[in-house]
Amino acid sequence: MSFPDNLKPKEPSGPSLLERERRQSPVAVDALGKHIFSGTGFLERQARVLAAMEKEPLFDKSQQQQLSRIERVKLGLARGKLMRRLQEKHGWDMDDYHMAAYLLGEQSPYRLHVGMFRTTIEEQSSDAQRAYWMPRVDGWQISGTYSQTELGHGSNVRGVELEARWDPSAKEFVVHSPTLTAAKWWNGSLGRTANHAILMAQLLVPDPKRQGQYISYGPQAFIAQIRDTKTHLPLKGIVIGDIGVKIGFTSMDNGYMLFNQFRIPHSALLSRYVQLDPETSVFSKSPNAALAYGTMTSIRTVLVEEAGTHLARAVTIAIRYAAIRQQFRDKDSQDPRSAELQVLDYPTVQVRLFPLLAAAFALQYTGKVMRQDYAKTRGEVEKGNLEGLAVMHSNSSGLKSLSTEITNAGIETCRRAMGGHGYGSGSGLVEMQKDYQAKPILEGDNWMITQQTSSFLIKRMTAAVKTQKEPPKDQTDAQLKGFLDRKDQGRTFDILNNDADIQESFKWRAASMTYDAYQARVVNKKRHNDLLIQFHKLSHAHSQSIMVSSFFSTLTSSNDLPRETKNVVFDLYRLFAYTTIQAESYEFLRCGAASAKDLDALPDRIQDLLSRIRPHAVNLVDAWQFPDYLLDSALGRYDGNVYEDLFNRAHRLNPLNEVVFNPDYKDDEIVKGSGERKPLSSKL
Amino acid sequence: MSFPDNLKPKEPSGPSLLERERRQSPVAVDALGKHIFSGTGFLERQARVLAAMEKEPLFDKSQQQQLSRIERVKLGLARGKLMRRLQEKHGWDMDDYHMAAYLLGEQSPYRLHVGMFRTTIEEQSSDAQRAYWMPRVDGWQISGTYSQTELGHGSNVRGVELEARWDPSAKEFVVHSPTLTAAKWWNGSLGRTANHAILMAQLLVPDPKRQGQYISYGPQAFIAQIRDTKTHLPLKGIVIGDIGVKIGFTSMDNGYMLFNQFRIPHSALLSRYVQLDPETSVFSKSPNAALAYGTMTSIRTVLVEEAGTHLARAVTIAIRYAAIRQQFRDKDSQDPRSAELQVLDYPTVQVRLFPLLAAAFALQYTGKVMRQDYAKTRGEVEKGNLEGLAVMHSNSSGLKSLSTEITNAGIETCRRAMGGHGYGSGSGLVEMQKDYQAKPILEGDNWMITQQTSSFLIKRMTAAVKTQKEPPKDQTDAQLKGFLDRKDQGRTFDILNNDADIQESFKWRAASMTYDAYQARVVNKKRHNDLLIQFHKLSHAHSQSIMVSSFFSTLTSSNDLPRETKNVVFDLYRLFAYTTIQAESYEFLRCGAASAKDLDALPDRIQDLLSRIRPHAVNLVDAWQFPDYLLDSALGRYDGNVYEDLFNRAHRLNPLNEVVFNPDYKDDEIVKGSGERKPLSSKL
Repeated sequence: MSFPDNLKPKEPSGPSLLERERRQSPVAVDALGKHIFSGTGFLERQARVLAAMEKEPLFDKSQQQQLSRIERVKLGLARGKLMRRLQEKHGWDMDDYHMAAYLLGEQSPYRLHVGMFRTTIEEQSSDAQRAYWMPRVDGWQISGTYSQTELGHGSNVRGVELEARWDPSAKEFVVHSPTLTAAKWWNGSLGRTANHAILMAQLLVPDPKRQGQYISYGPQAFIAQIRDTKTHLPLKGIVIGDIGVKIGFTSMDNGYMLFNQFRIPHSALLSRYVQLDPETSVFSKSPNAALAYGTMTSIRTVLVEEAGTHLARAVTIAIRYAAIRQQFRDKDSQDPRSAELQVLDYPTVQVRLFPLLAAAFALQYTGKVMRQDYAKTRGEVEKGNLEGLAVMHSNSSGLKSLSTEITNAGIETCRRAMGGHGYGSGSGLVEMQKDYQAKPILEGDNWMITQQTSSFLIKRMTAAVKTQKEPPKDQTDAQLKGFLDRKDQGRTFDILNNDADIQESFKWRAASMTYDAYQARVVNKKRHNDLLIQFHKLSHAHSQSIMVSSFFSTLTSSNDLPRETKNVVFDLYRLFAYTTIQAESYEFLRCGAASAKDLDALPDRIQDLLSRIRPHAVNLVDAWQFPDYLLDSALGRYDGNVYEDLFNRAHRLNPLNEVVFNPDYKDDEIVKGSGERKPLSSKL
Repeated sequence: MSFPDNLKPKEPSGPSLLERERRQSPVAVDALGKHIFSGTGFLERQARVLAAMEKEPLFDKSQQQQLSRIERVKLGLARGKLMRRLQEKHGWDMDDYHMAAYLLGEQSPYRLHVGMFRTTIEEQSSDAQRAYWMPRVDGWQISGTYSQTELGHGSNVRGVELEARWDPSAKEFVVHSPTLTAAKWWNGSLGRTANHAILMAQLLVPDPKRQGQYISYGPQAFIAQIRDTKTHLPLKGIVIGDIGVKIGFTSMDNGYMLFNQFRIPHSALLSRYVQLDPETSVFSKSPNAALAYGTMTSIRTVLVEEAGTHLARAVTIAIRYAAIRQQFRDKDSQDPRSAELQVLDYPTVQVRLFPLLAAAFALQYTGKVMRQDYAKTRGEVEKGNLEGLAVMHSNSSGLKSLSTEITNAGIETCRRAMGGHGYGSGSGLVEMQKDYQAKPILEGDNWMITQQTSSFLIKRMTAAVKTQKEPPKDQTDAQLKGFLDRKDQGRTFDILNNDADIQESFKWRAASMTYDAYQARVVNKKRHNDLLIQFHKLSHAHSQSIMVSSFFSTLTSSNDLPRETKNVVFDLYRLFAYTTIQAESYEFLRCGAASAKDLDALPDRIQDLLSRIRPHAVNLVDAWQFPDYLLDSALGRYDGNVYEDLFNRAHRLNPLNEVVFNPDYKDDEIVKGSGERKPLSSKL
């Protein structure tokens, strides 16, 4: 036992400070938690799966960030195997399995197998293909990936270069990469793990009218074995590998793959929505092929809710730590012996963290509304009504862009609000942030996909202008026509005193910007590309409007919260709306969604909300009930033992401290006493 | 030779695209490069040092991101030794040495030795101390660190808990950590490397009037040996270690340190500005003790210029890649066979990258002006005139905050503008970004230090109000009085047509916000802490004004650029100013720094500037002349061979591809054929 073992942090301690925070606020933590997760069984599932995981030493997180890339991927594979075994052992369903992956918090090399590989087969296979493949997939007899993006093409799926050329005589497809840029690239689980892949490749079929020519039917999905099941080496004619180090996703083997005249059978073409007649070589498409887009819409919807969870994690850590960290005495205090202030008492910390606390609630409410809407739309689609799909696709695109934007920036804001310690791995944010940095550019780049939202809105505005006198046919139509009817005389919104008016103000602004975009593109026929910046802003404005409305409507209609708690959450609603307006004050002013007088009052109003929320901050984040195992954070742990934990991680758990260095620059020896002296002129 | 070796990327190739870009712009790359680095000898030094470094295999960067933490620190140490040897071999001066460190681009474990350790001894030692220590420091006979921040205290230096208690009988200081939070923490080079340290500790001297009581003289700097020079183990009574993994700074051994009644001699107290009489125990302070602040001002000044360089690196990579990457055909094009557009042609990419290109120029000009001002101020200080120090301290604080803000966010924007490949290490931004993320919170947290700027401005406004009728005594006074004289009738600024008016508009806004802050704090006596958000905004507004003015004045007065080139740089000036105004439109409107009419015209004006800058983008970044070795970027390499390089890094240089996995979840074996089967139930 050495002397640091007897040392305690200075008083007041973290636990006592958190205890005081928890006592002082009337916010009902349990009720709020149930309210947030109502109807999902989330908290019960979390507790059950966590109990099973915490028994496994392999899931211990304390050393993983120390590892080399190779060791980290190996660990990821071992954990993936264990997770699957636990699934069998405990009879976990898919939601349980995903919960385990969420709690572990790393990208598993098997992730694509249980994700896009499985989903694509399920949704795009013919019945016969499904019957053949699904048992192999769900029994993990094979291991799969989804291969779409290439070295030279990401967002533009139609531009992928990989070819699948139909050979009618052999009744096979010849898969071939004509160029280096045709290399499949970024595909998760491909680099070292998968032995099967869904391939997106340009389907080329011989042109019956022109000898030696091919007709292109655009990118289609094929399933193919890519590695030998015995040796696990790539099959002849295929080259595969891992693409290397990334910002995050360290445990994931994102891969590349090239084909040299590789043959796959006719049955490889996934044939639910498209078919190629093996006898006549005639290609056909089902009328409901658009349904294939449903997968992307669903993924984007999940990303919105996930943005809320991830932001909530970061905010939980930052707020707990800010309640414990103390810094400087009050400059206006008369007492020179007054204690240093809790960092959470500074408006400069509040103004960074509380709007994010509010945004996390907004994202969670929005995600919930989206999830319910999506289920409803799927139901309609099954009945043959595809109309809702376009709205869902538009909303999910805009919201995916906005929400991952908010969370990506929000995690960075939280980490910086924690000062020096926020930069260390004891924050629990280091790996989470690095992994999250992928979200704004995956599943549709955040700038690119806002075109989908704005195109939809412009289309709807065009229709609304044409049918202005007719009754609105749906919610979007009503909102746009409401604007058209009043745009000349204008409207006023009492954003400072009327919660409902706040959401109306956001709707008005979004409609006004939609009208401007419609004018520019449809009436004045400006070039599409010249309007992209405007489209992006429009999409964000529309998405903000959805977030504000989802927050307001869900909260207003809920009756599962004690009044005092609900009032505090209403303050979060206002804070989210006001800070959003403030950042775009001039835009709100221009279109008449807010008055100069109200905008001038916003800074004081926001500061007032910050101090009203302040006493409840710790209870509000407690309501999310993140387990310490998930957070893996010295700064954000529930009990507040921040400094002991930081010291423990450094002093007892850091393997670097077992190595003694030789700092003498004249000596080639690096590890003191090792006697190993590799000349410094050689490579590492 | 396998088939991928014969594959080429699709046409047009990166080299041909860059060649076209370079041909089409009249921007004089060499002249602009000389203009940017004029008077610094930077380019000559870069070429010379680079030539020496490129010969050393140890400086090869291709594998470093694959390493475990331990291996990476070892590599850092080996490289640090080699760098020192090269310094001796080539007779490098300190600027050459720092150039080498810059080109290598990682945090060396010796960094504090050549940085704060050396600087502090040089600046705060008595002549006798300097004579004793400096040869040992410069000869690398010892290895040092600077120990200030603690587990419980960072920004509030006065709050450090480590004690140095004077023992008059032994004539020694007793250094002791009374609590766990008193542990020194974050100190670079401490964890594994240093054997000496500058210690910031509370100087406690026995109170002659009260037996057993001590008088505290606040934190003072001491020098102490901390590790045994033979064994390199901590001396008895000291515990030292590395604090663990961080976001970046992987090669750096940031450390912790605790003391248990550890004794150091009287000569340990650095005694240029403070003295303790060993016989009488009387403590005294020099009148010019404030000079010790000079170091921080100097460091912050360097950070401003460094922010420019780092942003320029990111922008160089992003712009070159965007000129090569092609994505989607023009939606308005009639030709279905038209090529995909270069990503750089999209306004949505331009609007992200070109304002940063402009900001990098702005930061570099500002850094240059700051550097010159600082030299001038130091000269004045030597002559006993301390007045300039306050302005420098204020400006360097505000600009450190704003500039590291711009660059930290800017790197992320650049990396995201590169889509998927921006997330991979082939971007060359991964380690740079992770390291840079420390800048906003080090050397004065970005939110905290803006108080120093605003306090200064409020003080000066208070004086200006009092002496409004007197002639201005310096530049700041003139600016504030100019505002006071005209604030009631207002002024108009023709920001759209007059470059000089742009900078006047920024000055007006900063003065107006200074006046508001003065009103709130001095006249209405609002609480300091309640005004912190306002202070932060004020500091940024003032700093933006300095940046715009530095840009304008340097460019206007320079005569080393061909007219066409200068015109393009003027467009960057406008773009920087307009996008800055646009982000704060409402603020400019409110204080009369810009009219609603002009603000409404900004979006079109900005888009027009984007398309005017577009043809010159590649030449503009070429002017910075970043060597490929520094960039270490497949995406940003000078020759444009993006895809070959990405593929090479993955296919030939990635060691993970030498490991074949066993993906069968029922099998404990991880590496195929290794036969190694560690039960999955054990720890990693």
